[in-house]
Amino acid sequence: MKKPYISKNVIQRMPRYLRTLTELQKEGTNRVSSGELGARLGLTPSQIRQDFSCFGGFGQQGYGYNVKTLRDEIAAILGMDRGYQMILVGTGKIGQSLLENFDFESCGFKLRAAFDIRHDLIGEDICGVPVLDCSEMEDFIRNNGIHVAVLSTTRGGAQRVADALIAGGIRAIWNFTECELSPGESDVIIESIHFSESLLRLGYHLSNGASA
Amino acid sequence: MKKPYISKNVIQRMPRYLRTLTELQKEGTNRVSSGELGARLGLTPSQIRQDFSCFGGFGQQGYGYNVKTLRDEIAAILGMDRGYQMILVGTGKIGQSLLENFDFESCGFKLRAAFDIRHDLIGEDICGVPVLDCSEMEDFIRNNGIHVAVLSTTRGGAQRVADALIAGGIRAIWNFTECELSPGESDVIIESIHFSESLLRLGYHLSNGASA
Repeated sequence: MKKPYISKNVIQRMPRYLRTLTELQKEGTNRVSSGELGARLGLTPSQIRQDFSCFGGFGQQGYGYNVKTLRDEIAAILGMDRGYQMILVGTGKIGQSLLENFDFESCGFKLRAAFDIRHDLIGEDICGVPVLDCSEMEDFIRNNGIHVAVLSTTRGGAQRVADALIAGGIRAIWNFTECELSPGESDVIIESIHFSESLLRLGYHLSNGASA
Repeated sequence: MKKPYISKNVIQRMPRYLRTLTELQKEGTNRVSSGELGARLGLTPSQIRQDFSCFGGFGQQGYGYNVKTLRDEIAAILGMDRGYQMILVGTGKIGQSLLENFDFESCGFKLRAAFDIRHDLIGEDICGVPVLDCSEMEDFIRNNGIHVAVLSTTRGGAQRVADALIAGGIRAIWNFTECELSPGESDVIIESIHFSESLLRLGYHLSNGASA
């Protein structure tokens, strides 16, 4: 069965719903109305009901939503229960910062290994994650059923590393290199954190006097 | 005169137009059609013409756009010619990575100083940017006409630092803390890099088989 088309804007909002519901759960809230959710997120109640209707709707009008059920359903839509296996390539400052600070597990990803070409790092481990030699990368992907790679190398050579990841059988790349990566002939998913686009948007809002 | 409303999606695309036009300029291309721009960006020509019409349009149908003129006009819309002054707060791994690798000037921002509470860093400089004591931050903002702060502290205390920045008179915060910061009563612009939202979107696309 072909899945219904879900707009990019709805997908953009799903992680925000998840975060808000996780907060509500921590605060001990059991039920929440679309109005209360909307107030936290700066959205109208009808916008929220419309978004949820894309996934078949999660509640009954007038009764609000059960916070835990709704959170679990959104987590499942986001694939957080699939046990995705992950590697990280490039243990420079950004890579190390992710290894030390980012909670991959809470997003549903299991970080198995990091890869670098620097001999002083290979064989070490960073926050429990072993740093291996880049030459072993493709074999590691195949032998360990790795789904996703974090790409945090320098800009030069990023596409070459991406090509090797794709050849190894990776299904998605989380791209921190500021390069516009091409998936080539593959259907590999590329999700990029574009620092400069974000800063330029800030500059736009600053110059045009509107809140972001 | 009230400015016309520009949709969030158009603003999202402006930095991508800028990047593509900068690339075209480097390649020595003088003129580009909306069709050629669209092919590079995965957008239809009519989408591009519609986006540009929000800003009064930049070309004449059938003649294409002058690459340099269009790039300069978009750069001006993004405020890149305004000489925004900037500080960075928190020189942990993410902060250091930005100081070492990110080209603030090419986005139109002048990074004047970094701030930290760690005594081993205060007084040093990182890639030519002096690291000062956080206790001097508010005075520095006032005395140097600082417009923007990069917030790259740890998560705990992020809102407290943001409050101090706002009290100091900052007009925008580029937020790397993964906290949902509140501008309080101010109209300070907050532009956030949300790592987890990005990774969750990747998980969504991976689970639902659609390219990002």
